[in-house]
Amino acid sequence: MKVAYAILRHLVKFKFVNNPLKHTGAQVVQARNLSASPYLNQEYNQKTDWGKNKKSRKVKLNLYFDTMGDPQIEQVLAPLRASVKEQGDLVRQLKADGAPELDVKKAVLELKARKKVLEDKELALAPNATFDRAKMEDLLKRRFFYDQSFAIYGGISGQFDFGPMGCAFKSNLLNLWRQSFVFEEQMLEVSCSILTPEQVLKASGHVDRFADLMVKDVKSGECFRLDHLIKAHLEKIAADKKATVETKEECTDIVIKLDGMNKEEMAAILQKFQMKSPTTGNDLTEPIEFNLMFGTQIGPSGLAKGYLRPETAQGIFVNFKRLLEFNQGKLPFAVAQIGDSFRNEISPRSGLIRVREFTMAEIEHFCDPNDKNHPKFEDVKDVELLLYSACNQMDGKAAERKTIGAAVSTGLVANETLGYFIARIQQFMVKSGVDPKRLRFRQHMANEMAHYACDCWDAECLTSYGWIECVGCADRSAFDLTQHSKASGVRLAAEKKLDQPKTVDVVEAAPNKGALGKEFKKDAKKIQDTLASLSIQDIEAIEKNLDSSGTYELNAGDQKFKLTKNHVSVKRYQKTVHVEDIIPNVIEPSFGIGRVMYAIFEHNFKQRENDEQRTYLSLPAVVAPLKCSVLPLSSNSEFKPIIKQLSTDLTKVVVSHTVDDSSGSIGRRYARTDEIAIPYGITIDFDTLKEPHTVTLRERDSMTQVRIPLTEIADVVHNLAYNKQSWTVVQNKYPKFEQQESKGN
Amino acid sequence: MKVAYAILRHLVKFKFVNNPLKHTGAQVVQARNLSASPYLNQEYNQKTDWGKNKKSRKVKLNLYFDTMGDPQIEQVLAPLRASVKEQGDLVRQLKADGAPELDVKKAVLELKARKKVLEDKELALAPNATFDRAKMEDLLKRRFFYDQSFAIYGGISGQFDFGPMGCAFKSNLLNLWRQSFVFEEQMLEVSCSILTPEQVLKASGHVDRFADLMVKDVKSGECFRLDHLIKAHLEKIAADKKATVETKEECTDIVIKLDGMNKEEMAAILQKFQMKSPTTGNDLTEPIEFNLMFGTQIGPSGLAKGYLRPETAQGIFVNFKRLLEFNQGKLPFAVAQIGDSFRNEISPRSGLIRVREFTMAEIEHFCDPNDKNHPKFEDVKDVELLLYSACNQMDGKAAERKTIGAAVSTGLVANETLGYFIARIQQFMVKSGVDPKRLRFRQHMANEMAHYACDCWDAECLTSYGWIECVGCADRSAFDLTQHSKASGVRLAAEKKLDQPKTVDVVEAAPNKGALGKEFKKDAKKIQDTLASLSIQDIEAIEKNLDSSGTYELNAGDQKFKLTKNHVSVKRYQKTVHVEDIIPNVIEPSFGIGRVMYAIFEHNFKQRENDEQRTYLSLPAVVAPLKCSVLPLSSNSEFKPIIKQLSTDLTKVVVSHTVDDSSGSIGRRYARTDEIAIPYGITIDFDTLKEPHTVTLRERDSMTQVRIPLTEIADVVHNLAYNKQSWTVVQNKYPKFEQQESKGN
Repeated sequence: MKVAYAILRHLVKFKFVNNPLKHTGAQVVQARNLSASPYLNQEYNQKTDWGKNKKSRKVKLNLYFDTMGDPQIEQVLAPLRASVKEQGDLVRQLKADGAPELDVKKAVLELKARKKVLEDKELALAPNATFDRAKMEDLLKRRFFYDQSFAIYGGISGQFDFGPMGCAFKSNLLNLWRQSFVFEEQMLEVSCSILTPEQVLKASGHVDRFADLMVKDVKSGECFRLDHLIKAHLEKIAADKKATVETKEECTDIVIKLDGMNKEEMAAILQKFQMKSPTTGNDLTEPIEFNLMFGTQIGPSGLAKGYLRPETAQGIFVNFKRLLEFNQGKLPFAVAQIGDSFRNEISPRSGLIRVREFTMAEIEHFCDPNDKNHPKFEDVKDVELLLYSACNQMDGKAAERKTIGAAVSTGLVANETLGYFIARIQQFMVKSGVDPKRLRFRQHMANEMAHYACDCWDAECLTSYGWIECVGCADRSAFDLTQHSKASGVRLAAEKKLDQPKTVDVVEAAPNKGALGKEFKKDAKKIQDTLASLSIQDIEAIEKNLDSSGTYELNAGDQKFKLTKNHVSVKRYQKTVHVEDIIPNVIEPSFGIGRVMYAIFEHNFKQRENDEQRTYLSLPAVVAPLKCSVLPLSSNSEFKPIIKQLSTDLTKVVVSHTVDDSSGSIGRRYARTDEIAIPYGITIDFDTLKEPHTVTLRERDSMTQVRIPLTEIADVVHNLAYNKQSWTVVQNKYPKFEQQESKGN
Repeated sequence: MKVAYAILRHLVKFKFVNNPLKHTGAQVVQARNLSASPYLNQEYNQKTDWGKNKKSRKVKLNLYFDTMGDPQIEQVLAPLRASVKEQGDLVRQLKADGAPELDVKKAVLELKARKKVLEDKELALAPNATFDRAKMEDLLKRRFFYDQSFAIYGGISGQFDFGPMGCAFKSNLLNLWRQSFVFEEQMLEVSCSILTPEQVLKASGHVDRFADLMVKDVKSGECFRLDHLIKAHLEKIAADKKATVETKEECTDIVIKLDGMNKEEMAAILQKFQMKSPTTGNDLTEPIEFNLMFGTQIGPSGLAKGYLRPETAQGIFVNFKRLLEFNQGKLPFAVAQIGDSFRNEISPRSGLIRVREFTMAEIEHFCDPNDKNHPKFEDVKDVELLLYSACNQMDGKAAERKTIGAAVSTGLVANETLGYFIARIQQFMVKSGVDPKRLRFRQHMANEMAHYACDCWDAECLTSYGWIECVGCADRSAFDLTQHSKASGVRLAAEKKLDQPKTVDVVEAAPNKGALGKEFKKDAKKIQDTLASLSIQDIEAIEKNLDSSGTYELNAGDQKFKLTKNHVSVKRYQKTVHVEDIIPNVIEPSFGIGRVMYAIFEHNFKQRENDEQRTYLSLPAVVAPLKCSVLPLSSNSEFKPIIKQLSTDLTKVVVSHTVDDSSGSIGRRYARTDEIAIPYGITIDFDTLKEPHTVTLRERDSMTQVRIPLTEIADVVHNLAYNKQSWTVVQNKYPKFEQQESKGN
């Protein structure tokens, strides 16, 4: 079955555009759903597309990067590129002319539609390999990398349990992340609460704006995500043979523009096409905004509303003061957090890509707004990246390969710190197993970027679902700290030493503590605090009133106090200051770990040449669930002490391993270990029993083997597993071992 | 201020006694609250005792283990021991006589009260050191090991954020756990969903029985945990100088017995003493059972109720089939999971000990019910433990030190597997920094053990809150798998190979598929499935009915089908079987990570001799947040390249470290690094600049120093940090470096 795919849509984008929420890399991309009922919302009974289709579902795996520069392909694309550019220029012009917002918005919608047509064509024309997603999912389920949660109770959509291999892979991936970021960059790692009180998420904007639109069946109460419902309905109309060309075009046009529509626009479409519940035919409610956060009550009183955090970042912001203090007051510093987040998706789908419970790894790098250089930028400046700039997107051009050094120096990437992290993200992704040829960094266009952000790039991986966003990397300016300062009343700022001390004019309402205490007793403190917090305007008002009437009525909280010249005097003087108060800016790399894992699975799912049935995962050793297998040729009892010794030796050098002494042939057992991505296999055969004792060592991807003394094997595997030695070096050092690795062998 | 403490009470035990929930090691121990308002339940405004009291709060730190055998102390304790034994014997007698349940319960309550008096006395008489909890909490807050969550918004009680040092310590502790259990025992580690549908927790018993009693202020709605309220009220009465001796005694007696009281008994006390809201004086509601799970809705429909998991274990049980299959159908095997769990405590307190959000590490070891031997038991049989058996508790005797080998062979510990884990728990705890002298294993008495469990031991640590349960280790028989089999309809069993094949009689209701299909069309499959699931009795009923009337009415779900001899025939034959179906038993070690961390903090909080202000944490290097500090003697620019090189070298050998180039004296900087438990410090001084380049290395606990060549230092610290070499060896190898480490230096 050929499936047109890669209809990559930012369906939830309306949550983010011009609103203070952000792309966190975990949940914001929606890929086209391939299952039969894309609009169904049943929590139980496995109504997702995960692993349902047992039939082989091969899709063309496009290698997008390869299209660049192919003159034949470019010829086909040229008119599409021109069409995007035309619209891009119009958008620019409208903005320059200060055209009405509605006009700009319409033009942007049309721009997106044209971009989408171009991207689909690009992917369709790219040279492609065949990828069989059903086969990969079968492997992942069968060997329990992960599978649907609570399956014996019918399963819950959008929730997955990681089995032994998935859990070990995830754990190794997170360790590598910790190693690459926390440890190498000496970041401060924190671990904050998941349950979050409403105030915090009110300040961050999530309570008011983190919502999707849905409609309900008026009788059954069944819920449908509105954009999914409209899309499915219109696609059905367009697929009808009896439909006119005009109708088909109208439907296609709406589907493409859906992404950018607001509540009213979608409601109008619902009305126009008289849409009903696809399962019952009943009427539907008006569109409802459904907040994507899971709500709960903290404590028994029912008075303290809380949510499961939708991202880990807020825990870092609310701890800013403690962290700054921990860092002895100095900027810049970076804080990292790995943890679970939750989003109550209306209709989760696409396996690990859109789920309700997911692990994120986020970094908040706090720095001086006027100095975003990075001391280690020099180390990465020559790293080459595939950058898809906002400008190229508007001009209908392809992504371009350049060094991060060039991108920063030309101003394409806003600053060194942002550039440094983009390069480090790529290094981490590639080390973890992402195919560098299927990784690009896409810049947000002005219209999709939160209003406060200066620059934002998404690391996107090309998969059978299209380009999916796996990591976001944004310069969020001082937005988050400012919001929490306002909401909490606690000023989240840092002190910056001035190059030169400067003299400032100070106006102060100086309290006469004795007189205040005598008259106002326990309220004196309150009055003093209020005086200390007054603005210059307030102080000048006091001065004026005291001069004119001799008294001033001070508002302190919900109380009023009548003050005289005896209680307070206004003083003016000059002061030399050595520091100034600044609100740090934040650069935020944010990893959706489940999505990164999914991309790695797809990029490493392989079939043996000449044997389609023999599939395996070529995960890099550093993230592979187990580093090594131990396979005795037979159940001969003489092998037992050797196995035990070998297992002890491997444990000592921290090489995770499994002993497979089942009765299958060696070839079949290799195939089993290949499926779970074990990179190295040690076989104990009858030659092992002879002195000097030797074993064979096999490498998974090349299937080549060498013969190694038993005394050396543990260290050799340790060095291979931890990238201290390459397989080539090992092959050169030890004699090759030849054996046909057939299925029956 | 001297505080009587260690009124260790299992306040929530009523949730567990004779009910299918269990002690998970994380939340079941309640220590006496030391703050002024133990009954307040305000989610905001920091109404907990955490870090509130800035005054030094020294408590006697009793070294309980030391009391054993001291003849003078034993003389004082003798009558108390006799009193416990007398009551223990009475309980035994009542049970043997089959006395009414109520009588047994009353006797048990009295037994607990006497045990408590004995334990208090034991602790009070023990030789003791002074421990200053306020000072420790000050250190932990100041250096941001952990602190209250959302403090800038007033804080939420029962929730904590781990700062850089706490997070690194926790992460190292979990890595050590993974190393000690998952890796060394080759367990299957999984990572399951937190959001759990109601059905699952209904089956486990949590929905119906996982509750605490509370009362509400009828006007303000404020909630109070009932036992806390009664206790505070009665203690106030007892403390009144005007109270009679009888009243005082009655109050004390009730407080001691509160732990075991049920709803009706507590309601009666509430009534008798006419208790009102302690904050408003308003009337209170009748006691209400408040479920401790956080509820939420999964999906938008509002129809799928879910909870945040209250423990991680259920995720393992519901995946049993996949895990058994992963293990190729073989028993025994163990599954591990590290993850967050949640309990909506009515009034959380005591810092990390009773919280709403906590990390657990649980193991489920699945084994043959008839074979609970453990292949590696031999390795641990000589491990000595402090065991506090149920029998000794009933006899008023002290805990006893014995080897696990002796405990299992005499039947004190039920089986080898349980014993193996108890020993391994101790090894892990001690390696992590728990003081072995303040660690005991307490056996559950018959009356506090869940009815299905065979044996259960808690690892308890002695802290300033008394003995707190940190790890539970229980043989839970086949309870969990049986419950989920029943509720889900999926049989969770394993196949066991018989020693000898055996012949069994089979009675079968054999369907005539052709005839069924012809008559019942699409329902035929349902009928066949129903026939296949019938019991022998059902089949015999079919046989009888068909013989007598020629028809049989079959109930299949909510439908009925009339079957004749043409549709189904009853067959009897013999079959040889090689396997039998068994429901595995489960041995469950369950770690409350936050509690283990707290015990480690207390056991490692130290003060320097002759300098009370200079406090530090003597965490073992393996769990210390950072392994090493690098301290240049001054800001001399010649030190810079050396620091950079050293930092690179340390990173290469995976030694986490911090560079402190602040301007404080070396002595002051050592003190700072001691506070955050850094075990090793490298100082770069002016001698370092001379060839051959050398640095000094200092060990935290002894404060001794050696001089080491710069080229060797990274490897030396690596070996020390990963326990590959001891400080003694390093001291013998390198020249001692003498320097006075004064505050001013």
